Amino acid sequence: MKAPRDHGGGLDAAIAEYGGTRADWLDLSTGINPVPYPLPDLAPHAWNALPDQAAQAKLIQRARAFWNVPDAAAVLPIPGASAAIAQLPRLGKAGQVSIPGPTYNEHAAGFATHGWDVTATAPAQADARVLVHPNNPTGHFYGTDDLGAPLTVIDESFCDIAPMRSLVAHATRPGHIVLKSFGKFWGLAGLRLGFAIGPDPLIAQLQEMLGPWPVSGPALTIGARALCDQIWAQDTRARLTADAARLDALMQRAGADVTGGTSLFRLYRVDNAQHWQDRLARHRILGRIFPYADDLIRLGLPAPQGWAQLERTL
Amino acid sequence: MKAPRDHGGGLDAAIAEYGGTRADWLDLSTGINPVPYPLPDLAPHAWNALPDQAAQAKLIQRARAFWNVPDAAAVLPIPGASAAIAQLPRLGKAGQVSIPGPTYNEHAAGFATHGWDVTATAPAQADARVLVHPNNPTGHFYGTDDLGAPLTVIDESFCDIAPMRSLVAHATRPGHIVLKSFGKFWGLAGLRLGFAIGPDPLIAQLQEMLGPWPVSGPALTIGARALCDQIWAQDTRARLTADAARLDALMQRAGADVTGGTSLFRLYRVDNAQHWQDRLARHRILGRIFPYADDLIRLGLPAPQGWAQLERTL
Repeated sequence: MKAPRDHGGGLDAAIAEYGGTRADWLDLSTGINPVPYPLPDLAPHAWNALPDQAAQAKLIQRARAFWNVPDAAAVLPIPGASAAIAQLPRLGKAGQVSIPGPTYNEHAAGFATHGWDVTATAPAQADARVLVHPNNPTGHFYGTDDLGAPLTVIDESFCDIAPMRSLVAHATRPGHIVLKSFGKFWGLAGLRLGFAIGPDPLIAQLQEMLGPWPVSGPALTIGARALCDQIWAQDTRARLTADAARLDALMQRAGADVTGGTSLFRLYRVDNAQHWQDRLARHRILGRIFPYADDLIRLGLPAPQGWAQLERTL
Repeated sequence: MKAPRDHGGGLDAAIAEYGGTRADWLDLSTGINPVPYPLPDLAPHAWNALPDQAAQAKLIQRARAFWNVPDAAAVLPIPGASAAIAQLPRLGKAGQVSIPGPTYNEHAAGFATHGWDVTATAPAQADARVLVHPNNPTGHFYGTDDLGAPLTVIDESFCDIAPMRSLVAHATRPGHIVLKSFGKFWGLAGLRLGFAIGPDPLIAQLQEMLGPWPVSGPALTIGARALCDQIWAQDTRARLTADAARLDALMQRAGADVTGGTSLFRLYRVDNAQHWQDRLARHRILGRIFPYADDLIRLGLPAPQGWAQLERTL
C-alpha cells in the first residue's frame, strides 16, 4: 500500500526515532485542541446498532443551528473532512483547479488523482478553487471576492475559532461546498467526524459516494451533544486565544518570529527549522516542519500539563 | 438529500409508526450479533489524536492472522464495508457486472451509479462479478468456480460464522477483492469498521479513494483487541448456531418454513410476509421483509433477554 503524504500526527514515528514512550512526548505537530470536549456517556446502541436516521437527523439539526447554515443548503455528516476531500474532485469535470498555497496538501493530491491540473496561482477562469479558510499553516482568511469558481471548496476545518469569519452563508451557491471538521476545535480527531455543507444536488452526490452509515454511532452522539454546547465553545475560544499568546511569547523569547497561524496552531519563522525540530524532539516535543520551507515551524498548543516541558526546553 | 435505500436497522421509523420506546423493542431487522464483543477500556488518545500508523499497522497484522490472509494480499481497514462498496465500481472500466440476486442491494446501486450494466444472471464473460458470501438473505455459499471475472468482489460480511468457507485465499488474484465486516459477527455495527483485502495495486487505489485516517481511533483499538480473541470467536459461533436452531424451532411451530439464512439471520417462507411483519411490530418486534418477495421474512437473533418477548408473540 502507499505511504501516507507528509502530515502531522506521526508521534509513533518520532518515538521510533528519538525514543521515549507516548506519555513522555508532547505532540505539537497538529492543530488539534489539546483540551477535548468531555466525552458524554454513550448508550450501548451507539456501539452495537447501525446508526439510525433519527440520530443522524438530530446531529444535522444541531449542526445547522451551531453554524447558522442557510435553510437552502444541505448538511451531510462525514467520517472526517478527509473523506470528503478525497471525493470532491469527482463533483466536477476535470479541468484547472486553483489551490492557493502553501496549504493542506490533501486537496491538491485529491484533485491530481482525478486528472485535474492543479495550480497554486489564481487565474480568473479556473474550473475549481479550493480555499482553506483560515489557511493552514498561514492563518489567512479569504473573502467573498475569492468565491465563484464553478466548483468552490471552502475548507473551514479551523474556522470554529472565528465563527464570524465563516463563509457558510455562501453554501447555497451552485458548486460551493463548505467543509467543517469536528476533530480539531473539539479536540476529538480520533472520532472521525466532519460535515459537508452545500447545495442539495451536490451534497446528495457526495452522500452516494460515501455510502450508507458513513458516521459511527459514538460520533453521532458526541457530535450532537457538543454542537449544542455554545458555552463550551465560547470558553474554548477564549482559552485558545490566551494559550496562543502564551506560546508566541515563549517562542519569541527563544528567538522565533510569529509569521502566521490561528489560535489552534502558530506558525514561526526561524533561522533553521530542521535544527528547531531536532532540538524539540530531543526533549520529546514533536513540532511540524514543511518540505517547502526551511525556515518555518508550526506548533500546536500544549495541554495544560504540557507547558512546563515546553518552557524547560525553550 | 436522498432517502436511504431499503435496509434493516430502521428502528426509529418503526417506533414512529407503532409506538413504544427503544427499550420496548426487539430489533431483529438486521443480521448483527446481539451479544457484542465486550468493549475494552479506550485510552484518551484513541479519541483525541489522529489515528496513528502504528495503531493501524497493529490492526492490520491482527486481521492478517485472524483471517489467514495470504502474504501477497494487502489489507486495508475501512469505515464499514459500505464505504468500500460505494467505491469498488471505480476500480474497473464500466461494463457488465453480474450480481446474482436477490442479495444485499448496495452493490447493484453502487455499480449502477457508476454507469455499469447490472445483471442478476451469470454470463460467462461479465466484466465484473459480486458474490455476497454467504449470501444475504439466502445464506448461499459460492465456490472457486464462481471466481475469475476481471473485477470480482467477494463480500464476506457474514462469513465469520463459517471461517472454513472463506475465499480469502483468492484475494491475491488480479482484480479479486474480499470484504470483511466487523460490525456483524462482533456485534458492533455502530463502530463502522471493515476491511478490504486484495492485490496491492487495487487496495492502494481504494486507500487513495478513502483518504487518510479512514478508521476511528476507537475502531483501531477495539478491532485489534477482538481480532486476536479466538476463544470469544469460537464461543460466539457455537452460541449463534444454538440460537439459530432455537429461533427456527419457534418459527416452525408458528407456521413458518426455514428456507435459508446463516447463523446470524434466518430466512423464513410464510403465507403473507406483510401480515407477519405487522403482527410482530404490534408486539414491538422488528423483522425484515423484502420489496421483491411477499412470502419471505428474515429475522436476526434475539439477545438473551429478548427471547421471552418473541416467545410470547409467536
